[in-house]
Amino acid sequence: MTLLPSHPLTADQVWRDRASAVIPNGMYGHQSAQRMPEGFPQFVARGDGARIWDVDGNEYVDFMCSYGPIVLGHHHPKVEEAVRRQQALADCQNGPSPAMVELCELFVDRVEHADWAILAKNGTDATTMCVTIARAATNRRKVMVATGAYHGAAPWCTPNPSGVLSEDRAHLVHYTFNDAETVRAAVEKCGDDLAAIVVSPFKHDARFEQELVDPEWARMLRRICDETGAALILDDVRCGFRLAYGGSWEPIGVKPDLSAWSKAIANGYALASVMGNDKFRDGAGSVFVTGSFWFSAVSMVAAIATITALGEEDGLGSMERAGQRLRDGLSAQAASHGLTIRQTGPVTMPLLTFAADADFERSHLFAGSAAQRGVYLHPWHNWFVCAAHTDDDVDTALQATDAAFADVRATFGAD
Amino acid sequence: MTLLPSHPLTADQVWRDRASAVIPNGMYGHQSAQRMPEGFPQFVARGDGARIWDVDGNEYVDFMCSYGPIVLGHHHPKVEEAVRRQQALADCQNGPSPAMVELCELFVDRVEHADWAILAKNGTDATTMCVTIARAATNRRKVMVATGAYHGAAPWCTPNPSGVLSEDRAHLVHYTFNDAETVRAAVEKCGDDLAAIVVSPFKHDARFEQELVDPEWARMLRRICDETGAALILDDVRCGFRLAYGGSWEPIGVKPDLSAWSKAIANGYALASVMGNDKFRDGAGSVFVTGSFWFSAVSMVAAIATITALGEEDGLGSMERAGQRLRDGLSAQAASHGLTIRQTGPVTMPLLTFAADADFERSHLFAGSAAQRGVYLHPWHNWFVCAAHTDDDVDTALQATDAAFADVRATFGAD
Repeated sequence: MTLLPSHPLTADQVWRDRASAVIPNGMYGHQSAQRMPEGFPQFVARGDGARIWDVDGNEYVDFMCSYGPIVLGHHHPKVEEAVRRQQALADCQNGPSPAMVELCELFVDRVEHADWAILAKNGTDATTMCVTIARAATNRRKVMVATGAYHGAAPWCTPNPSGVLSEDRAHLVHYTFNDAETVRAAVEKCGDDLAAIVVSPFKHDARFEQELVDPEWARMLRRICDETGAALILDDVRCGFRLAYGGSWEPIGVKPDLSAWSKAIANGYALASVMGNDKFRDGAGSVFVTGSFWFSAVSMVAAIATITALGEEDGLGSMERAGQRLRDGLSAQAASHGLTIRQTGPVTMPLLTFAADADFERSHLFAGSAAQRGVYLHPWHNWFVCAAHTDDDVDTALQATDAAFADVRATFGAD
Repeated sequence: MTLLPSHPLTADQVWRDRASAVIPNGMYGHQSAQRMPEGFPQFVARGDGARIWDVDGNEYVDFMCSYGPIVLGHHHPKVEEAVRRQQALADCQNGPSPAMVELCELFVDRVEHADWAILAKNGTDATTMCVTIARAATNRRKVMVATGAYHGAAPWCTPNPSGVLSEDRAHLVHYTFNDAETVRAAVEKCGDDLAAIVVSPFKHDARFEQELVDPEWARMLRRICDETGAALILDDVRCGFRLAYGGSWEPIGVKPDLSAWSKAIANGYALASVMGNDKFRDGAGSVFVTGSFWFSAVSMVAAIATITALGEEDGLGSMERAGQRLRDGLSAQAASHGLTIRQTGPVTMPLLTFAADADFERSHLFAGSAAQRGVYLHPWHNWFVCAAHTDDDVDTALQATDAAFADVRATFGAD
């Protein structure tokens, strides 16, 4: 006798069951819904502007924006139009389209420290390339990275070391973000073998409160690299074009030698880039890096349209307004429910954590409750605001979060 | 006084000049025209079927097919239609579309050894992941690779070691393709630390004659992996779906444990895959691998349409017919010009070399002359035939190659 489930299966669950047969664990990587609270869909059917729909037809105000790539909103008309025009001509060919040159010219024009650019597909391609270029240019080996920072999923940097060898990380030396003392100790440890310091624009490590960079500390890194000849590598994969138009450290006036970009640069089309200054041009030119789809034209015209629209439509201004409205609303709601929360990082890349919530139990309940009420945000990874978030989107989301705060209060009490 | 050029600059040259300002060396990777004879364009404007057009409007019969991705021909209507439908819904989202499940089911159905699949973006993602999975599953370190084989452009495998550390390759042990003795020696050297043997379906190393696999030697690799518990990894990135529908070693009946795929699986849309058997499912599930664009839906529906069309239209049959017609024609032409050539590898992935041409001077002249006459092929890297190559395309190409052979004969004499 077969027991019938008391509720009909959702379409999402049916697809999850099929997936579990043909994909290890049914899903992998940062988008696995197994990492998320109950109530989050695994499969997404459709997106428009700042809204998405899952395979069961549920609508969400989207505050993850595909974990960063969507910066103008889903299906931005100017990006889609540029894509349609290029697709009618060519995408992956025996050589690039002139759009590759136009895009690199645009990067060099907009990004303050950049004298040249190389294009790739994954953020990990870009961070790995930066390290390789720094080693090639300096003929040194040691690379300083912040403890807990995410720089991609290759063996040298993946946060889960299954299948990784000690040799893959043999010449990494760790420091603490915003901490001068540990930087000095790491530099000393590297001696005359320091090839590069890799740093994120701000501390956005998953499962931790976010922390903006101390400009004085950033200037210290710049001075160390100037003195030692090492490359200052800014990993702008997650933040690029969400904090500033000219690179995320443009506002504090610290120029990296090399920067890694991906995610938002083409509003969802697969693209990554390394940008660098003339000091590292020869090193970049000495490294053999390539991929079957690295010269495909469609993602490049998408990037040109994205960057152009961001500037013309003041996308950063829109993101900041929406992010501030969301932050203010959440702050007032939490207070009204007697809950102590912290909102950290830039308003365009927010994170909400609860006080005394070491196991993220409150965050999980909050995010799951919000999802069931039509807001897609994350319990322990920074969220992403996009330029398409209207006041109405934010206010709709705030109705749901108010109820989610009430759920947290009901389950865990005040504080 | 400024000297005017005797010929007006081509559009291609104008774009190359602009590129040199904003891209190291003006271009990089496998599609750099600096690696090619004079007469090859760097920039491609358009493609349709088996023809492409450069930015100066010159038309070519395309025998490189974007270095492998184009397997059905440029702009195959069924692929483009599937892409248009999916683009109207969603591409890069907070989670995959159901197309991810359907594609993995299709892979498992078609590819003989596959019980599961993981999707990624670059061929290098896939080969690197295979090695990492093998190490995770076996808890061993040594990986056997054939001397001179190309498995991607990450530090562990890139053919140009600028910026690469000895640690990146610390546990690679080399053998010679099709050579039992060197395999035995390598296995002995690895002792009880052998995690994997990586092998290409046939020897397709750039700048060497191609060499089909000896089935008995392939079976020997399979036996070694069975006896030692190491993973047999087939790097099918370049050959997948060009030699067989079920994996490139399906015809010889040797099943790998893991296989790496990319290039042709989505007819030019950016996608890669690792496929594996149940023995390595847990190892695959233990590795953290991901990328911002790995779950994008458009390339997945393109792959489903590509694989379906390949089967329904007998794409392999079309490729084999066109490749054989090309090989027969080239063979007769060379003989008529008194030139000794060798054509090696499968007819769907041909390579033509000249006898006594160690420096590839004849090949360069031949390929450059062919390009100027409207045929795009390569002097020292295997070519790619696609299912869109008609008899007319091949015969048009043969007119050009006849003249190119005459050029070789005129410059270098007979033989």
